[in-house]
Amino acid sequence: QSSVTIYGKVDVGIRKMSDSSADLYTPHGSRLGFRGEEDLGGGLKAKFQIEHRFRPDDGTDAGYTAASTNPTTGVTTPAVARFWNGLSTVGLAGGFGELRLGRYYSANFLGANNKADPFGGDGAAALRGVGMLTTAPYIRTANVIHYSGNFSGVNVAVSTGLKEGAAKAHNSIAVGYANGPLDVGVGRDNGQDDGNLTNLYATYDLGVAKLAVGMGRRSTAAGVDTDGLLVGATIPAGPGRVLVGYARNKTDDVTNASKVGLGYFYPLSKRTTIEFTVGSDSKATTNKRGYDLTLHHNF
Amino acid sequence: QSSVTIYGKVDVGIRKMSDSSADLYTPHGSRLGFRGEEDLGGGLKAKFQIEHRFRPDDGTDAGYTAASTNPTTGVTTPAVARFWNGLSTVGLAGGFGELRLGRYYSANFLGANNKADPFGGDGAAALRGVGMLTTAPYIRTANVIHYSGNFSGVNVAVSTGLKEGAAKAHNSIAVGYANGPLDVGVGRDNGQDDGNLTNLYATYDLGVAKLAVGMGRRSTAAGVDTDGLLVGATIPAGPGRVLVGYARNKTDDVTNASKVGLGYFYPLSKRTTIEFTVGSDSKATTNKRGYDLTLHHNF
Amino acid sequence: QSSVTIYGKVDVGIRKMSDSSADLYTPHGSRLGFRGEEDLGGGLKAKFQIEHRFRPDDGTDAGYTAASTNPTTGVTTPAVARFWNGLSTVGLAGGFGELRLGRYYSANFLGANNKADPFGGDGAAALRGVGMLTTAPYIRTANVIHYSGNFSGVNVAVSTGLKEGAAKAHNSIAVGYANGPLDVGVGRDNGQDDGNLTNLYATYDLGVAKLAVGMGRRSTAAGVDTDGLLVGATIPAGPGRVLVGYARNKTDDVTNASKVGLGYFYPLSKRTTIEFTVGSDSKATTNKRGYDLTLHHNF
Repeated sequence: QSSVTIYGKVDVGIRKMSDSSADLYTPHGSRLGFRGEEDLGGGLKAKFQIEHRFRPDDGTDAGYTAASTNPTTGVTTPAVARFWNGLSTVGLAGGFGELRLGRYYSANFLGANNKADPFGGDGAAALRGVGMLTTAPYIRTANVIHYSGNFSGVNVAVSTGLKEGAAKAHNSIAVGYANGPLDVGVGRDNGQDDGNLTNLYATYDLGVAKLAVGMGRRSTAAGVDTDGLLVGATIPAGPGRVLVGYARNKTDDVTNASKVGLGYFYPLSKRTTIEFTVGSDSKATTNKRGYDLTLHHNF
Repeated sequence: QSSVTIYGKVDVGIRKMSDSSADLYTPHGSRLGFRGEEDLGGGLKAKFQIEHRFRPDDGTDAGYTAASTNPTTGVTTPAVARFWNGLSTVGLAGGFGELRLGRYYSANFLGANNKADPFGGDGAAALRGVGMLTTAPYIRTANVIHYSGNFSGVNVAVSTGLKEGAAKAHNSIAVGYANGPLDVGVGRDNGQDDGNLTNLYATYDLGVAKLAVGMGRRSTAAGVDTDGLLVGATIPAGPGRVLVGYARNKTDDVTNASKVGLGYFYPLSKRTTIEFTVGSDSKATTNKRGYDLTLHHNF
Repeated sequence: QSSVTIYGKVDVGIRKMSDSSADLYTPHGSRLGFRGEEDLGGGLKAKFQIEHRFRPDDGTDAGYTAASTNPTTGVTTPAVARFWNGLSTVGLAGGFGELRLGRYYSANFLGANNKADPFGGDGAAALRGVGMLTTAPYIRTANVIHYSGNFSGVNVAVSTGLKEGAAKAHNSIAVGYANGPLDVGVGRDNGQDDGNLTNLYATYDLGVAKLAVGMGRRSTAAGVDTDGLLVGATIPAGPGRVLVGYARNKTDDVTNASKVGLGYFYPLSKRTTIEFTVGSDSKATTNKRGYDLTLHHNF
């Protein structure tokens, strides 16, 4: 009777960074998820989704953080066992859009931040962190009420993560417009740390290449601004596709990172891809360059 | 060939207690379970069941307890990673009843303790802990041999959790009788801590309302007795049902808790319910009153 | 569309060792696994497999190790949450054999070490650890590239676990030959600890009994050798089978362990077995003798 769908991916890459020995890792965040939906009538559905993340290279739970003690203050932070590190929500969906309760991506992350990088923030060529300034705590939100809807090509998402003891809530919003080859949008996170992150993106699919541009501005509670820029392209080539991009960010006039990324994704099937990516960040102090070769299997 | 059934629930409530800010939580214990059975012939079946508990509001494993250090003694209790916090058993079932080995609910919990509270011990209106004195370590038993059977409406359950280093075993028993609208029974836990818990319950379904009454007596190893009482009713009302009840408990002549609970459960379908509950405990020192609104989805 | 197979086992034994009180445990390593494969055409397949291990007697994750502090040095080893403690791999399979990336059994463990013990290293009668010197870190390998293939009855397996910060890689190899009633082979682990383990085995199925012999030599980095020997037989008897064996190991002229094991496995079905095993190690300093009775259910 029950209609639970199991989904996920296992991806393992062999990586070589310029100052480190080769290692195995999971560039795309290997995962196991369970989701289901129930028709409530009248176009309404109840939905749930829970998603675990893990590291296939050593079998560990990627959502577990061991306890740590600050060497200066001596304060110990207890361990956290966030098994469902991807997301964990229950909600309702219908003509109005979708409402999710639980822990989920911030509205800005899904709606703007993650739209520009051809590499999706993953692997040796990842540009999202550099150009869109994607960083915790602005990726996912705990204790969240998340709404998203699509109206004639306009995507709207709003989320608020309740304070639950913190000084502030984590609020996020994103608005985008997708029509034919064009997709543009803007998003914003206001965090519990009193900082914020604003993102803009535009992508245009020319057919011979899909172009992307993105920007990010992150402001800390102390008022320090960092500005990021990202340009990229995804180019169909033979059976696969070439991905290329550049990203940098600056705080005042100091460039923190300036990175180029290049990759080729070769599909063995719809669900399985072999990927080669290479990245080089001229501002990095260690591991300026690196590459990886990944077997990426979705199920 | 294998016939594994995936089941579970995700429920998230928005709660407001009188002395705390609003938060999200999981009143019913969100879970993901796997179970299966194999026909062995002659009416005999092999069965297994394992059930994980989690908190969808932040994605954490509800069975994980971080290490802690007693500030007085300096003794550290190591972390426990009880992923299958709901239960984990393998067993045999047939005309004789069912035998389970592993970790499971105590006989008394299933057979008597959890029978009276209309709210099932969950949410802002929960009465079970107050009136039936439901508390660890009398809910589940590790290293247990658990037998249950039903004979012409008489339910019998006996469980013994092996000592495994402790001074005593955890033994539990329950006997109930269900016939038409009537269900009555009694149960008892004798714990490893040398304490014990006795419960009585009776429910009667009048059609216009199902009435419940329950009692609990808990005795500590030191011989201190606490006596609890619970009365409740579940009343079909419109598409849903109204739940109402009262519970209190006393140690000698001191009333520790005196709580009323009220709720309305509105079904969106057989598997999905919206629930509103409110509770008020006049003896509580903080958070005397509270309410919650919950989206409860079974799969 | 997705074709995920859920598999596993729950087995619980009641064990009594000579110097301990009775306890419940999981002799065979209760597990829950997910695996799938995708046809890529041309005889090639993409495959993934992830396998969790747990203890049904108390519901805990068998892959979790709590943090510990060395009482002498005061150094704390952080907790490890290896949820997929059985294995976690993605790979490709075809006429060439199978390639796995992730965390997996060492080539020697699968190809030689685990071939001789009738008890498979499990339960009160387990002989594998004694005679084949099976010990961590030679059972599984993290960050591994594992190849295995079968060519006309010759099984070949090679695995290398990348160093990733350690001084050495963990390399392993095994070669076996199976033809009709005969199965023989040899395997070798060279570990990150600069030690190594070599195993030989031969089994022959006479029909009335399957005979097994195995040997192990383990050398530590310091050059200390330990030599093990194992002989065993599996004898069909009535509806089930009798298992019997002997194993010992010596360091120089000192015998560390000298153990006999005996068991009867009674199948209730293809997937469910009741097992009784008894073991006695004359060299053990405590718990020389023990037995267990296990309900073993595969799904």
